[in-house]
Amino acid sequence: MRIMLTLSYDGTDFCGWQIQPNGRTVQEELERAVFEVTNEKVRVTGSGRTDAGVHAKGQVAHFDTQTEIPAERLYKALNAHLPQDIRVIKSQKASDTFDACRGAKRKTYVYSAYLAETERPLKERYAVRLDENLNVSAMQKACAVFLGEHDFKGFCSSGSSIKTTVRKIYSLTVDFNGEDLIFTVTGNGFLYNMVRIIVGTLVKVGEGKADQTDIEKMLETGERALGGKTLSAKGLCLDSVYYEG
Amino acid sequence: MRIMLTLSYDGTDFCGWQIQPNGRTVQEELERAVFEVTNEKVRVTGSGRTDAGVHAKGQVAHFDTQTEIPAERLYKALNAHLPQDIRVIKSQKASDTFDACRGAKRKTYVYSAYLAETERPLKERYAVRLDENLNVSAMQKACAVFLGEHDFKGFCSSGSSIKTTVRKIYSLTVDFNGEDLIFTVTGNGFLYNMVRIIVGTLVKVGEGKADQTDIEKMLETGERALGGKTLSAKGLCLDSVYYEG
Repeated sequence: MRIMLTLSYDGTDFCGWQIQPNGRTVQEELERAVFEVTNEKVRVTGSGRTDAGVHAKGQVAHFDTQTEIPAERLYKALNAHLPQDIRVIKSQKASDTFDACRGAKRKTYVYSAYLAETERPLKERYAVRLDENLNVSAMQKACAVFLGEHDFKGFCSSGSSIKTTVRKIYSLTVDFNGEDLIFTVTGNGFLYNMVRIIVGTLVKVGEGKADQTDIEKMLETGERALGGKTLSAKGLCLDSVYYEG
Repeated sequence: MRIMLTLSYDGTDFCGWQIQPNGRTVQEELERAVFEVTNEKVRVTGSGRTDAGVHAKGQVAHFDTQTEIPAERLYKALNAHLPQDIRVIKSQKASDTFDACRGAKRKTYVYSAYLAETERPLKERYAVRLDENLNVSAMQKACAVFLGEHDFKGFCSSGSSIKTTVRKIYSLTVDFNGEDLIFTVTGNGFLYNMVRIIVGTLVKVGEGKADQTDIEKMLETGERALGGKTLSAKGLCLDSVYYEG
């Protein structure tokens, strides 16, 4: 049977999702836990790769197993064999055609930052510190430019071979409570480093070093240099993945 | 001149505030940083000790120095010599009679928990997981019993020699957003493990294993056994310290 997992991890000590020769990965830990529980060598397929240092609150994955452990109890058995920085929140039986990667219709990422002159040790693990003089309302206004379908060629780091760089953004918001600055973006898919570059570009707007016209130009020309920095992985969290039905 | 510091630290990797022969402490790191900046061996006095693993958002401390670095810029120099898990947020000149410990009139502690069946790796560093079936409103109602002046002998761990176990609680609240359960308590002072035992006792109320009468009895008789567990240090954070003026 095919199992769908919903899982959360603290990405700090992982070299990302995907198994690689050197470095600890989430996929490797999951496949090891499945093996320890079922004695089966399986491939665990995620909704997508998360990069080194990126966190997940609601990553989704699937794998096939012959185990007799009921699907909805499997998460407990897996958690008993997983390290503390990964937890399966839910396990359930999925249809044989369910594919955590190809079936993902929308994803929401949250990027966490805070504005302060000095680092806050209690926030540093999951957020990046930004200049306290950022023009937040300029950043909030600029969000509208990203909405809809665009070619995000200018908002990705090279390194991946993909068919198309066209993606659709359903929503992009910047919430500010006077200290914490939370970016929430939902789209039908994201290119390599895309969220971190979008947020970095919004920060450039907040610094007064770019404006909405620059973003429009980036979307038209694909010119990466017009954008802001690729912000640190530690602020990024895959919040949730949506499927049909 | 006397310097007042406001500082924040992630207590995870500290054996608490107070210098001790074995183990890394906040006080030791601060005194080392002051030495590296001023070449003076000073005693840094905190508003109180925090235990091993307890965090601080707004700890206050003082020390005396002959340095010519302006007081309000000293925090930058200190931060350059402090490890990443401690940051001085503010430094200022204080009156010669200011005492971070004896002058503290009120302190606010925040205890962070979350209700879930499974651990959430992204919350585990700064909060404890509690049973999702806790009766939160019973806990909220029970808070009132603690308000005012009481003998908290039953709400402290043995080990400290103190004159009196009478303390005054100004406010105690339990906020719940459906997942995060945040306890906030302000008092004129707290005994050893007092906040962690108060919260543990409220949890016992939430479990239906104690009620307000038990808390009243604890306050009357000083009987520790009536209360709940001493909850883990990692959920506790010294939020702020208040002084006259």
